Amino acid sequence: MIGIFDSGVGGLTVVKELRRQLPGASFIYLGDNARTPYGNRSQDIIQKYSSDDVEFLIGKGAKVIVVACNTASALAGEYLKQKYDLPIFEVITPAAAAASQVAIGHVGVIGTRGTINSNAYGRQLQGLRPELLISSQACPLLVPLVEENLFNRAETKMILRSYLHPLKLKGVDTLILGCTHYPLLKKHIQIKVGGQVKLIDPAEEVIKSLGEYLLATKQNFGDGVAEFYATDPDSRFKEIGEVWLQEEIDLQRATL
Amino acid sequence: MIGIFDSGVGGLTVVKELRRQLPGASFIYLGDNARTPYGNRSQDIIQKYSSDDVEFLIGKGAKVIVVACNTASALAGEYLKQKYDLPIFEVITPAAAAASQVAIGHVGVIGTRGTINSNAYGRQLQGLRPELLISSQACPLLVPLVEENLFNRAETKMILRSYLHPLKLKGVDTLILGCTHYPLLKKHIQIKVGGQVKLIDPAEEVIKSLGEYLLATKQNFGDGVAEFYATDPDSRFKEIGEVWLQEEIDLQRATL
Repeated sequence: MIGIFDSGVGGLTVVKELRRQLPGASFIYLGDNARTPYGNRSQDIIQKYSSDDVEFLIGKGAKVIVVACNTASALAGEYLKQKYDLPIFEVITPAAAAASQVAIGHVGVIGTRGTINSNAYGRQLQGLRPELLISSQACPLLVPLVEENLFNRAETKMILRSYLHPLKLKGVDTLILGCTHYPLLKKHIQIKVGGQVKLIDPAEEVIKSLGEYLLATKQNFGDGVAEFYATDPDSRFKEIGEVWLQEEIDLQRATL
Repeated sequence: MIGIFDSGVGGLTVVKELRRQLPGASFIYLGDNARTPYGNRSQDIIQKYSSDDVEFLIGKGAKVIVVACNTASALAGEYLKQKYDLPIFEVITPAAAAASQVAIGHVGVIGTRGTINSNAYGRQLQGLRPELLISSQACPLLVPLVEENLFNRAETKMILRSYLHPLKLKGVDTLILGCTHYPLLKKHIQIKVGGQVKLIDPAEEVIKSLGEYLLATKQNFGDGVAEFYATDPDSRFKEIGEVWLQEEIDLQRATL
């Protein structure tokens, strides 16, 4: 059983990838939406919340953990790997590896303030290819815009431009979409940074890496069980999630 | 000792009013910014978090509670008044009373999704003046825009217009700024709804009502003690708060 957690609804983009790459894999999803968003919180708090999330999933029978949230991966990924005795897949390592493989010389990283300030992507990228130029930009307004479903609005495009135009001017050739919400704006992001820039989606990379692990260790993917939990099931999780996943979600309450 | 709580930094607009109307009053402020924002959460969660907040303040010696957060006031105000045995001042009652006194015939209410969906302002207004027309609008993007300090940006003005122009067209003559963050956008809000519309600031009204209570019960206002607590003191609370209050904040950690 694969346990996936996120600060809220955003990690459903990882579920979507899981379904595409490993159809039929059994998973439990936990969205900690009673405490969402994680993006502006301190490392202390992120580590505490992430531990709560992992322990809930272990309690429900998870044998492998996927940290879908970029902020949790950046600020608590290493901490969780040291603290718990089961495989933990965070999004930073595989997304940085993918970017370093395709980049010509200049990688852009966008994410929440927490992810960007941590420099987690930067450290990994420079460990892999020390000569790479790295430019990063915190985009704190993109999560609320996406959660309001304002994908095609002029305001969204203006805000995207203010975040992305500086990266375009700097000449990034590869861009890591370092937050679960950003793939939903992929089309507009591509336009703003230019069509030649390669976009890296951490959701795609973390599931690729999970799939390789499951194959290598000859583990059963399970029989298509899907359980969804949220810490605030009465809020808009179900409404937003069903639009994103395009399927009905039977949402249960998680008490951490 | 006056205990003031809010979901985060927003309630500092209430502290500002307290200082203006009751200079020298002693208070403890708690910002639950490890779980901010409250605006999109369910009533269950808001009641739980608000109880945690009140109990923290009581533990620190508060004898009177001010619920600075409109969402907590709307979704947990009555609940807290029944649960705790000390005076609880929430923002809905005095702001609705003030609006009903100045309105010609049509009151607009803006707030978070939680505040607007609760219809807490609407119920109070109609209890006071059943003939009043009431039009409300959830404005979920204004909190993140204000917290990013984007007061004068074109994007902010466009988003404000999309929320407020419909209220202007409907002909509201009075507008309740039903979220602690909105007074920081007062100037732009006034422009978008028209100069003749009367703006009601719940922070101003709740402190007026607290002042009347303290006078009536002949209570000492205290000797200017000010204590600030946050559940995530290492995040941007201090940085944002010091800009808003224009004073240095000695911030302590609250564990709820």
